[in-house]
Amino acid sequence: MSKTEAETTEKSKSKLSVADLAFEKQGGLLPVIAQDEISGAVLMLAYANIEAVKKTQESGFAHYWSRSRNALWKKGESSGHLQKIVEVLVDCDEDTLLYKVQQSGAACHTGAANCFFRKLPINTKSK
Amino acid sequence: MSKTEAETTEKSKSKLSVADLAFEKQGGLLPVIAQDEISGAVLMLAYANIEAVKKTQESGFAHYWSRSRNALWKKGESSGHLQKIVEVLVDCDEDTLLYKVQQSGAACHTGAANCFFRKLPINTKSK
Repeated sequence: MSKTEAETTEKSKSKLSVADLAFEKQGGLLPVIAQDEISGAVLMLAYANIEAVKKTQESGFAHYWSRSRNALWKKGESSGHLQKIVEVLVDCDEDTLLYKVQQSGAACHTGAANCFFRKLPINTKSK
Repeated sequence: MSKTEAETTEKSKSKLSVADLAFEKQGGLLPVIAQDEISGAVLMLAYANIEAVKKTQESGFAHYWSRSRNALWKKGESSGHLQKIVEVLVDCDEDTLLYKVQQSGAACHTGAANCFFRKLPINTKSK
């Protein structure tokens, strides 16, 4: 493939639609990582079905699918802790999304700024 | 609960072991987000079973479970693109891990620095 063809392919690949997403891999759901656009902190991981992704695109606010409630979920709808979308990124095999967001208030339902506030021990002596 | 009791609970909660992780929720696997410790970039999402988490703790290098190959996978074992673990964080409901890593070379198998190099369009006019 010539450089121009490669560039064209790369350009066309850079624009995806929901139809390109591999929802079928995990029963209609994709894992979604929410990351704070300003601090870079990973805030949480949740899941989205195609409806949640479309609502996110249309509204500009993060929507997920609640596996426990079996329902579409606008993040912060009851708490006010909305996630305004800056961009939605797709991984190399189209089975994971990354929502870059402006987070209002705490991202975690515990009240913590993000959900990753505990550690597993590791062997820090290994090279 | 008194402040001291709350502090004690918080302290004990901050130390988890693999036995605390909710592997049963997703057929023995947890999603793992890998994040570059220096840049804060989200590098990739992969999955880990209990063996992969233990290998990660013991070796200090990121291990995952390959769903396509059905095998334990040391990231970078063939490519050299290892992920040295800085810390392993656990989310609020113990069903997602965050590996903070020092990434050698490209994190993505495509050669990209990370797997999230494509976008979905969003309605940026929404408030």
